[in-house]
Amino acid sequence: MKFKNFPMVPRVIFGAGSFKQLGEILLPKRKSSDTPVIYLVDAIFENQEISKQIPVLFSDQIIYVSTDEEPKTEQVDALVSLLKTNYPELPAAIVGIGGGSILDLAKAVAIMLTNKGKAEDYQGWDLVKNPAIYHVGVPTLSGTGAEVSRTAVLSGPEKKLGINSDYTPFDQVVLDPDLTINVEKDQWFYTGMDCFIHCIESLNGTYLNAFSQSYGEKALDLCKEVFLEDIDSSSARDKLMMASWHGGMSIAYSQVGVAHAISYGLSHVLGIKHGIGNCLVFQYLEEFYPEGVALFSKMMDKHNIILPKGICKNLSENQLNTMIKVAMAMTPLWENALGANWQDTITESKLKSIYKKI
Amino acid sequence: MKFKNFPMVPRVIFGAGSFKQLGEILLPKRKSSDTPVIYLVDAIFENQEISKQIPVLFSDQIIYVSTDEEPKTEQVDALVSLLKTNYPELPAAIVGIGGGSILDLAKAVAIMLTNKGKAEDYQGWDLVKNPAIYHVGVPTLSGTGAEVSRTAVLSGPEKKLGINSDYTPFDQVVLDPDLTINVEKDQWFYTGMDCFIHCIESLNGTYLNAFSQSYGEKALDLCKEVFLEDIDSSSARDKLMMASWHGGMSIAYSQVGVAHAISYGLSHVLGIKHGIGNCLVFQYLEEFYPEGVALFSKMMDKHNIILPKGICKNLSENQLNTMIKVAMAMTPLWENALGANWQDTITESKLKSIYKKI
Repeated sequence: MKFKNFPMVPRVIFGAGSFKQLGEILLPKRKSSDTPVIYLVDAIFENQEISKQIPVLFSDQIIYVSTDEEPKTEQVDALVSLLKTNYPELPAAIVGIGGGSILDLAKAVAIMLTNKGKAEDYQGWDLVKNPAIYHVGVPTLSGTGAEVSRTAVLSGPEKKLGINSDYTPFDQVVLDPDLTINVEKDQWFYTGMDCFIHCIESLNGTYLNAFSQSYGEKALDLCKEVFLEDIDSSSARDKLMMASWHGGMSIAYSQVGVAHAISYGLSHVLGIKHGIGNCLVFQYLEEFYPEGVALFSKMMDKHNIILPKGICKNLSENQLNTMIKVAMAMTPLWENALGANWQDTITESKLKSIYKKI
Repeated sequence: MKFKNFPMVPRVIFGAGSFKQLGEILLPKRKSSDTPVIYLVDAIFENQEISKQIPVLFSDQIIYVSTDEEPKTEQVDALVSLLKTNYPELPAAIVGIGGGSILDLAKAVAIMLTNKGKAEDYQGWDLVKNPAIYHVGVPTLSGTGAEVSRTAVLSGPEKKLGINSDYTPFDQVVLDPDLTINVEKDQWFYTGMDCFIHCIESLNGTYLNAFSQSYGEKALDLCKEVFLEDIDSSSARDKLMMASWHGGMSIAYSQVGVAHAISYGLSHVLGIKHGIGNCLVFQYLEEFYPEGVALFSKMMDKHNIILPKGICKNLSENQLNTMIKVAMAMTPLWENALGANWQDTITESKLKSIYKKI
C-alpha cells in the first residue's frame, strides 16, 4: 500500500479582525515596487468595506471577478495573459478574497503564471511541473474547504475537474470570521452544507482512515452545532469557518462521494453552483446516506430553506445524457462511496431517475 | 488585538506502514552523496526492527541518543559541533525518530546548524534568525504533540524553555501508528496523558479561541475513546496518534496551564520526565480542573496505573524553592490558566503545598 504525502497550508492566521494583518503578512514577499500583489476579489465586494481594507501598495492591482458562473479554465488563461502583458515581472503574490470560486481561481492563476500552456492541460492529478507563485487565500464564505484543499476545481472545455497538485494549496490562509458577516442566508446555508456533505461523504467512504476520520468527525460536530443548536452569531461564524477548514482536511486522505459526483453533472450542463447543486442532489440520497439525509432535512427545516424544484424537468435527452456521462466519469468518487464494484449499483438509469427528481 | 500567524507542518503522511516511504521522501532533498541525512534515533531502537528500516544511503549517519534524560542545550551544541566537524557540508536533512525528547532534539539541531552561537541563546520566543535545515519528525510515541508544535523544549543551564520560532516546526512529519506498537504500558499511558492534559489546559484557558478549541475538543474526544472505551489496539494506535497531532495544534493559539507550569519545576530539579511529571502534578489539580481530574482518575483506574508517591518528601528547602521559582516564572502558562491576576491565586505557599503532596 502506498500512502499519500499530503501537503498542508504552511501558515494560517485565525481571528475576527485578522484580515487587517494582511498587509504586514505580504510585506516580506514584496521584492520591489515593480512586483505587484494581485488581488482577485469577488465582484460583490466592489465598493464594500472589505475592499477598502485591502492593503494596496505601489503597482498592486485589485481585479474584481464575477462569480455568477463557476471558474473556467479560459478565465484562468485570460487572467494569466493579462498579468503577463501588464507587468514586466511575475507578481509577488496572488491573493484570492472570496468564496470557493475565487479561491480556486487564485490557486489556478498562481500555478499558471509559472507553468506553460493552458489551464485545461493541468486538469487532473499531479500534472503541474513548477511551483506556483506565492498565493494567499482569504475565504469570505465558509464551507467549501477550498482554503485548505490541494485542488482548484475548474470547468474546462471538456470537463469540470480540479488541478490537483502539491503546488495547489495556498502558502498562507487568513481565516477572519468577520468577513462572513454579510453573507446572504441562502448562500450561507448552501455553502455550509457543502462542508456538511463533504463530511458525510468522507466519513461514509471506503477510503477513510483515522486521519481523515478525525477531521471529518470534528467538522461534522461543528456543523451540527452551527445548524442545529442555538448559538450566538459570532460563535457560529467562528465555528463554521473551522468546520470548513477541518472538512477540507478530511478529504485529504479520503474523497467526496455520491452527492458530488451527481452534482458535477448538474453544474456542467446547467451551470448550477456547487453549494446549491450539492443540496439539490443530497436530498434524494437516503439510499446512500440515510442518517446524513435525515440531519440535512432537520437543518433545512430549522432554517426555513426551500430548495427550488423542477430543475431538470425540461431537459432534453441529450442534456440528460451529458449529465449522466459527466457523473459516471467521476470514478474515484464512486469508488470511495461504494467500493470497487460501484457499477453494480450506479447505472445510467439509476442516475437518470435521480436527476429526474431534481 | 494582534493575531499569531501560525506555522503548520507543510507535509504529512499518515498510515500504518508509511515509515517505509521515508527513503522516497528524502530522495529529492539529497543534493549529492556528500550531503548526508542524519538520523537522530532513540537509543532504545538500537538493533531493533525500526532501525533496520531506516533508509541509510551514502554518507548518512544514524546517531542513537539516550532519552534517560530530557534534551539539553549542551547536547544540541555537542551534536551540532560533531556534525560540523565530521562533514564538509551541511546535512541534507535531520530526521528525528523517537518520542518528544528526540523530536525536540532534532528540531533544535536543525536550527542550530544554521544559526550562530549556543542553543541556550535561542531559548525563548522568536529569537531564531535563519531558516533551519530541512527536518523530518517521525514520532514513535503518541501524546507529546512535539511532531506538530513550534517549540523545541530544552533544559539549559539557566532554564527549561523551548526554542519557539517559525523555523522550529518540522518540514515533514511521518505518522506511522505501527511504530508505537511496542511502547511499554506505563510510558504509553503517561505520554497519552500529556496529550489529555494539553487539551484540558488549552480548553480551560483564557487564551482559547475557536481554532484551538476545535482541535482541543477533537483531541479530547479521541483520548476518551482510547483510554475509556474498549477499542481494538490498531484503532487505538491510530486514534492516539491523531489525538497527539490535534492536541499539539490546539496549543497553537492557546497555551498549556497549571499542570505544565508545576511540572516544569519537578523536571528541572529532579529530572522527572515530562509525561509522568504531568501526571504526578495533575492528580492534585481538582481545584483548577475538576472535570479533567475526574476523567484522569477514571483512566488511571481502567488501566491499573499506579503513580509513584513521596517524590518530593525528602527535598531540601533549597530544592523546593528552586522548583517554586521555576514554576512561578512560567508567566504565559499562568496567564492562560487563570488570567492576568493569576498571582492572586498562585502563591509560593500554594505551590509548596502542591509539591509536598507529590
